[in-house]
Amino acid sequence: MGIKSYLKEKRTLVDSFLKSYFNAPAAPSILYEAMNYSLFAGGKRIRPILALASYETCGGNPEDIIPHASALELIHTYSLIHDDLPAMDNDDMRRGKPTNHRVFGEAMAILAGDALLTEAFFMIADCGLRNVELKKSKIRNPNSAILRVIREIAMAAGAHGMVGGQVQDLLSEDSEPDRASLSFIHKHKTAALITASVRIGAILADSNKTTLRAITRYGENVGLAFQVIDDILDIEGNTAEIGKTTGSDERKKKMTYPGLYGLEMSRKKADELVSEAIYALKDFSERAEPLREIAKYLLRRRS
Amino acid sequence: MGIKSYLKEKRTLVDSFLKSYFNAPAAPSILYEAMNYSLFAGGKRIRPILALASYETCGGNPEDIIPHASALELIHTYSLIHDDLPAMDNDDMRRGKPTNHRVFGEAMAILAGDALLTEAFFMIADCGLRNVELKKSKIRNPNSAILRVIREIAMAAGAHGMVGGQVQDLLSEDSEPDRASLSFIHKHKTAALITASVRIGAILADSNKTTLRAITRYGENVGLAFQVIDDILDIEGNTAEIGKTTGSDERKKKMTYPGLYGLEMSRKKADELVSEAIYALKDFSERAEPLREIAKYLLRRRS
Repeated sequence: MGIKSYLKEKRTLVDSFLKSYFNAPAAPSILYEAMNYSLFAGGKRIRPILALASYETCGGNPEDIIPHASALELIHTYSLIHDDLPAMDNDDMRRGKPTNHRVFGEAMAILAGDALLTEAFFMIADCGLRNVELKKSKIRNPNSAILRVIREIAMAAGAHGMVGGQVQDLLSEDSEPDRASLSFIHKHKTAALITASVRIGAILADSNKTTLRAITRYGENVGLAFQVIDDILDIEGNTAEIGKTTGSDERKKKMTYPGLYGLEMSRKKADELVSEAIYALKDFSERAEPLREIAKYLLRRRS
Repeated sequence: MGIKSYLKEKRTLVDSFLKSYFNAPAAPSILYEAMNYSLFAGGKRIRPILALASYETCGGNPEDIIPHASALELIHTYSLIHDDLPAMDNDDMRRGKPTNHRVFGEAMAILAGDALLTEAFFMIADCGLRNVELKKSKIRNPNSAILRVIREIAMAAGAHGMVGGQVQDLLSEDSEPDRASLSFIHKHKTAALITASVRIGAILADSNKTTLRAITRYGENVGLAFQVIDDILDIEGNTAEIGKTTGSDERKKKMTYPGLYGLEMSRKKADELVSEAIYALKDFSERAEPLREIAKYLLRRRS
């Protein structure tokens, strides 16, 4: 299967799960509308797909862990809603549509983000207690693995990960770009959750330490590459394809990779990071092919 | 031991744990300052104490579950920070101090709240994996109990609980008070997390269904009483004792119990709810005395 078909197939699995999960909204309905608006705004589901591909690489059947993988998308979506708020990046457009607070107002956008973040942990714990799939899998101690997944995601999403990165990102606006701050922002704001995505696949497949270390290395490199490419696309990309206004990093005086190293060095860096990611999987069989192809695909992406 | 000594002793346990947990802040330090500012702003730790007292009622030693109980305070604190934001209740003072966003700015207040919410789940999952205390306790399946605790708290804090209640609270401002909306707000915004607090104590003590049902009934009634008394104090209380400006509900056109039923009926309702809470524990031994006394104490509180 080509990588595009693979991505499409896995994205459909995640989308179907999320649609059925949120198909019976309770009161107050406006809250669920706001949550669904951003959750189904055309996200590529990269993080869930990375978790599924990693689980597959480590010997599992992706259908066992769809709720756990999909929870990553709830966390990613919450982070976009909050990052776009007027008090933060003050963005009006996201994926070609008005941002959450432009449609539902600031209060609802904050609360929709809070609810999505909280729901992610509910989803994982609940499917851990009810899910028969994972229990039927070869895993020895599913409850312990699920607790590790919750710890992993919370660590990557919170003060030690994504939130810490966003704080540093805001602090660094208007200040002279420096390597240490830029590296901190990229590692925490983007790479942490992407690394956690592939790690939870390996954890749920009951992988040994060597495998988990290789998967982690893959995740860290792909995560950083992802952000470098994002920075490049913000300069070079086509607004219609990206769905948000290009050049916004420069206007907001964001610290970016091309801003510090120039475009050519940035492209070279992205290449190197993707090669490193693929090299980390050198001892894996053809089961790791989707992970390798995803890394290459991310390098080529236009949006 | 009198109830005041009991509350003080348990509060000290929770505070010591939280202080040692957050005593080695990582970068960016301003984020941890913002988190700590609100976490140590003088909260009474009612939710953690209810969890500890419930665990004790169900036969456990409170010291086994201090991290699980303390996580409730992280969630409560995050909800206060976000509720106070300009886009929400726009409050300048809380517990006699400037609100988080007045000190750290809106962006940092949003992110400090996000980080506290996320850290709560990290704390529970992490102590579940590392904690020896609970594993030494009589509980048969600690990992499964901890997953149930995570599910319970996420359900009570998210769209189906506290966040849903806050949305309805905002929607109801300026609209004619009605019983159904008021009941929805009180149940979701306040009672859900208080009910979860006592439920997690019972779950971690491996209680049977009958016990859990009685504890739940206690929690629901105490949770509603707590909010009715809050509404009364907002009208009658002394600004210095409460630490925020009294009369703020009326100015913000909040839907409140006294606003709908009058002060006298509200006091009667709070009395009834506390009696109901205590009645729910009628089959429990003297181990339930702290829970009974906490209910009475909440009725008498002045702040």
